Amino acid sequence: MPGLPAADTIRILVATDNHVGYAERDAIRGDDSWKTFHEVMCLAKEKDVDMVLLAGDLFHDNKPSRKAMFNVMRSLRMNCYGEKPCELEILSDSSEVFEGQFNHVNYEDPDINVAIPVFSIHGNHDDPSGDGRFAALDLLQAAGLVNYYGRTPEADNLQIKPVLLQKGNTKLALYGMSNVRDERLYHTFEAGKVKFFQPSTQKEDWFNLISVHQNHHAHTQTGFLPEEFLPELLDMVIWGHEHECLIDPRYNASMNFHVMQPGSSVATSLMPGEAVPKHVAVLSITGRDFKVDTIRLKTVRPFVMREIILSEEEQAMKLAKKANNRTQLTEFLTSIVDDMIKQANEEWKAAQEDEGPEDDEVPPLPLIRLRVEYTAPEGGNFDCENPQRFSNRFTKKVANVENVVQFYRKKKGGTRQAKNDAEMPEESTLASLAIDSVKVAKLVREFLAAQSLTILPQNTFGDAVSQFIDKDDKFAMRDFVASSLEKQVEQLMKMDTLDEDNIRDAMEEGKSHLEELFASGQLALRKMQKKAKRKPRPDDWDSDLNGDWEDQPAAADRSDIEDEDEEASDEPAAKTTAKGRGKAAPKKAAPAKKTAPTKTARSKKKAIESEEEEEDEDVVMLNSDDDDDLFVKPEPSTRGSKKAAPLKAPAPKRAPTRAAATNKAGKQSQLNFSQPTTQPRGATKKVQEVSDDDISDDDDAFEPAPSAPTSRSRR
Amino acid sequence: MPGLPAADTIRILVATDNHVGYAERDAIRGDDSWKTFHEVMCLAKEKDVDMVLLAGDLFHDNKPSRKAMFNVMRSLRMNCYGEKPCELEILSDSSEVFEGQFNHVNYEDPDINVAIPVFSIHGNHDDPSGDGRFAALDLLQAAGLVNYYGRTPEADNLQIKPVLLQKGNTKLALYGMSNVRDERLYHTFEAGKVKFFQPSTQKEDWFNLISVHQNHHAHTQTGFLPEEFLPELLDMVIWGHEHECLIDPRYNASMNFHVMQPGSSVATSLMPGEAVPKHVAVLSITGRDFKVDTIRLKTVRPFVMREIILSEEEQAMKLAKKANNRTQLTEFLTSIVDDMIKQANEEWKAAQEDEGPEDDEVPPLPLIRLRVEYTAPEGGNFDCENPQRFSNRFTKKVANVENVVQFYRKKKGGTRQAKNDAEMPEESTLASLAIDSVKVAKLVREFLAAQSLTILPQNTFGDAVSQFIDKDDKFAMRDFVASSLEKQVEQLMKMDTLDEDNIRDAMEEGKSHLEELFASGQLALRKMQKKAKRKPRPDDWDSDLNGDWEDQPAAADRSDIEDEDEEASDEPAAKTTAKGRGKAAPKKAAPAKKTAPTKTARSKKKAIESEEEEEDEDVVMLNSDDDDDLFVKPEPSTRGSKKAAPLKAPAPKRAPTRAAATNKAGKQSQLNFSQPTTQPRGATKKVQEVSDDDISDDDDAFEPAPSAPTSRSRR
Repeated sequence: MPGLPAADTIRILVATDNHVGYAERDAIRGDDSWKTFHEVMCLAKEKDVDMVLLAGDLFHDNKPSRKAMFNVMRSLRMNCYGEKPCELEILSDSSEVFEGQFNHVNYEDPDINVAIPVFSIHGNHDDPSGDGRFAALDLLQAAGLVNYYGRTPEADNLQIKPVLLQKGNTKLALYGMSNVRDERLYHTFEAGKVKFFQPSTQKEDWFNLISVHQNHHAHTQTGFLPEEFLPELLDMVIWGHEHECLIDPRYNASMNFHVMQPGSSVATSLMPGEAVPKHVAVLSITGRDFKVDTIRLKTVRPFVMREIILSEEEQAMKLAKKANNRTQLTEFLTSIVDDMIKQANEEWKAAQEDEGPEDDEVPPLPLIRLRVEYTAPEGGNFDCENPQRFSNRFTKKVANVENVVQFYRKKKGGTRQAKNDAEMPEESTLASLAIDSVKVAKLVREFLAAQSLTILPQNTFGDAVSQFIDKDDKFAMRDFVASSLEKQVEQLMKMDTLDEDNIRDAMEEGKSHLEELFASGQLALRKMQKKAKRKPRPDDWDSDLNGDWEDQPAAADRSDIEDEDEEASDEPAAKTTAKGRGKAAPKKAAPAKKTAPTKTARSKKKAIESEEEEEDEDVVMLNSDDDDDLFVKPEPSTRGSKKAAPLKAPAPKRAPTRAAATNKAGKQSQLNFSQPTTQPRGATKKVQEVSDDDISDDDDAFEPAPSAPTSRSRR
Repeated sequence: MPGLPAADTIRILVATDNHVGYAERDAIRGDDSWKTFHEVMCLAKEKDVDMVLLAGDLFHDNKPSRKAMFNVMRSLRMNCYGEKPCELEILSDSSEVFEGQFNHVNYEDPDINVAIPVFSIHGNHDDPSGDGRFAALDLLQAAGLVNYYGRTPEADNLQIKPVLLQKGNTKLALYGMSNVRDERLYHTFEAGKVKFFQPSTQKEDWFNLISVHQNHHAHTQTGFLPEEFLPELLDMVIWGHEHECLIDPRYNASMNFHVMQPGSSVATSLMPGEAVPKHVAVLSITGRDFKVDTIRLKTVRPFVMREIILSEEEQAMKLAKKANNRTQLTEFLTSIVDDMIKQANEEWKAAQEDEGPEDDEVPPLPLIRLRVEYTAPEGGNFDCENPQRFSNRFTKKVANVENVVQFYRKKKGGTRQAKNDAEMPEESTLASLAIDSVKVAKLVREFLAAQSLTILPQNTFGDAVSQFIDKDDKFAMRDFVASSLEKQVEQLMKMDTLDEDNIRDAMEEGKSHLEELFASGQLALRKMQKKAKRKPRPDDWDSDLNGDWEDQPAAADRSDIEDEDEEASDEPAAKTTAKGRGKAAPKKAAPAKKTAPTKTARSKKKAIESEEEEEDEDVVMLNSDDDDDLFVKPEPSTRGSKKAAPLKAPAPKRAPTRAAATNKAGKQSQLNFSQPTTQPRGATKKVQEVSDDDISDDDDAFEPAPSAPTSRSRR
């Protein structure tokens, strides 16, 4: 497929969960993660795509090591920078979808030549944390290497605005929803507090693509994101987080969209899902049709997993009768592992095949995992070797010397449902119960259950410990104690009479209050609101060094941390600055320095110009006397009850008034979600189209996309 | 001085020790460090300098927080990127002075528009550490934001090659020597293992500038860098690390060079040196003359420090006779602090003056430190308030509420030498004895003295703990234990007969051996060599993804980690690739994408072209049939003993042969240092010029620079 892309085709390299930094201290596997990320980025360059889309967990560690960060930066700079001008025009107001000082897409920056822009949401591993709530992606964005979009600053109130891109006649609305804790997201959807914005014009022309990073499967009642929660307007969902590579898009008939799950590019656990050959895809979008070309990654260390049940193995059953069968059993299992190693090497060679006959190349040591069910048959016995010792037999033959084999016995009757694991990613709730964070939280919970705290809220305590451990946030405990005490004192001060008799009760009450707040997710929200209030967003901080710095630093740029009051108070400003706001032109008004007569440079310049023209011609402003926002504002209401108050958080103060005004002259669609039932698994469509708009064509907003999937070519 | 710089003048903004991230969690001072760094970078843009030179400790923490890193990236990108083409031509082979994938100066990168390149060495706070030995500056370099130069990968064998820059007729040789632990550096100088390289031609035309980051004063016998250790060829030394601002260059007559100590841009301790108003400088170099314009920083929080001796204060002495004088004494001291606060505010306003009459601006809360000597006079008494309580009286009036006052008593007779502290930076050996790292190391030492380890080397243990604490290196202990055990086992395996009787002795011996190795600094060296051997540097790793990754990752790019054997084995390759190596042209051969007919773009393109021409015309290759290195290779020998072996490390294997060959046709200078006496303080010139070169003009290498300092204009 390489070669010049058609003028109307947007070609996107799709990958996710690169987990750079995974096992970086491992003597054998240490370089795996960035090696494959580098391959992915090289592929982007080689295939000459228009952009790269990553769906979270670019980094394995919340605070990546310098080595991991360096390797990512290098791969990005080597492959994304370049002379080729990016042909994507951006139609949305960048500052609405990007945060921070450099809130334009990187390829519009006049000081950097970006040939292939990378767009990424964050995952659960590389989410924002710590003071100022910066994510590793913020650093990459500050460097100009990545476009970090689809932020989810308010997990309880998501406003999802797409990046609007155009190439030729193809229009792409790129949505993103960075990771939010699954239970919380479920709750937010249920509460109708997730709003998807749509371009205001030509809705039917847009290809609507979203990337998400959530559990895909219902491990618990609410611990996942049902596909049915997503709006029908979507054409394609890129699903991050799940490590199993299911690269071929699956059609969800009830929602009429496709779902592609690229899977991780490095195996972070020895589960069947990780043994599926790793791929990335080039998604080619022309108009509203798409085509997918999958590419098998070559640098991925081969991983072969096998499960056997000894009592079903003829050879093993012969041994079972013998009294002392350990040696022979070990021989039997060794032969199986040897066979698996052979298979791994063959698979690796097969993956390299189109490279030509470089037969002298030595395959990397494979990952091998043999699960052995050794429940003794009647009248027999399986005397298995110590698994560690058995594994060590394969030193220099496998990469995971410490855990080649796993022995287990059936618990009762019934077949063990090991197969289910195949669909369970490492990060799922159940899996993590056994390993990482949840274990810590559980330990804390058990410990606290026995101790019972007087002042500090116990559930928040566990959360702070998790932050400390999982996010490597040194200050998590300090901040937790300080803020809890502050709130307690605040609470106590409010009391009229406070003496020794009732102070205990009062403290207990305060503690319970904090625990409730945390449980309902409001504490986090409040924290954010507080932060936002302390540091309102200045428009020109960088040009005014003598002002009060309180108004200027990083937090100010991060308008993601904003409460609704401020949102409301922003509105009049938007009105007065009028036309300026809806424009996509970058803040740096000066044209690109080197824009010039070489062919490539000229076309880049032209792209910038024509984009500005497009702005004025193509994107119809809703209501020029009231609002020049590019997006239609949703209104918090449900069908048939125009002014119904949302369940919890108050509506933006000015929104209703403005919506009313807008209705007179403009178009308005509302993409609100009603509450699904509490068991959304396998649910039919819970998403309702809600609109108080009386202009007919607006109903298209939720009309099923052209429903003939056969008209879309798929490989 | 703003305005167009003369065509032959190189203008450099000089600053150092920005300590970004210092006290970032402090509610009041949290933003100070990046606020002032931002001011410095804005000044660079405003003054339209040709480059910025930083002398270490850009970051306060070895692993800067994301917030600190983000703020630095933002300030750099906002001010250093831009349309203005950098007028500095680079004459040296960039790959000789820069490391990593992007081993060219950032303004030569065709994909980034750098208007004002930043050059920086590392300091003791932001030195390389951890796996792969990356520094925070490596990330900035990977992003294209900074040129990290003057690396000191082998602290025991320093090869200091300058970056050669030219603008018009002015030639600048920019040397850098990143921080090395002072004692170790002293030892390395003594051992004659510090080599300064010089341009091979027109030596007398170069302005030789160096930045260093070491103790400037002799706190201990060998715990500093004597100015006399530096070579006389230098014209100017920019001294980082010391926080006192001594911005006006001081002439060192015995060395015939000037020394400028810009000081830190944020006060990290409440010592007199930090109270000196903070400045940066614009150093303008024309030919071999220079001019210095100093600029007072405006964003720096005012800091007033005062010392009083109560027994010398009339008012206090009146109180001393009274029995219960605490209240009145407190009043007295309060009035002094109030006066200091007033002074601080006035100083701040004075610093803002040329901004015009913005009188409504509120000065930031000042730093105030009052040192009170309260030794009781005969027959009297000073009943001082608890210092913490006293300090808290100034809440909302000062920034350092917790430590406004410091009380002390004279120890014996004699006046206390508090004045000396003024010259002692926070980071000096003595000062740190009382606070940070050394305390940890000392604790460990004391602890170990009582315990006595059997297997692990005790001195290395302390070092590992320091790494763990100071450099936030999670793996320091793990690595230390693993490597110590490995070495012990290695040692034990060598023994012929090993039984229970002698195993203890053998282990003890192994342990002592490791301790000796560490003490002599060789362990670190060995470690590095080992690393280098495991991962030799490939030439084209990035284009060959199917090769063995062992050969490809980060460490491979970091040719700083290289032992001499490899250096030697590199030589033949250098010969065969011939001319390619000496060139300064970046690896990306393609011309800058947008180079084009706008005036600025054209001149940038021209600069690149003419630089390549310069290469061929101006810089005479030493010996075209053997070596095209731009620099003269020093040879490890002392005058009168051509082949004298160096003191410790073996000479590069091929060097003697090559040097001999070179001598026939080319020029060769050797800048070796003999051993100074063990008390170098106030020493006369210990640096000897050593050369086995018989070509006369080469002796200029160490000729004093034009010695009339009056011919240099100074402010």
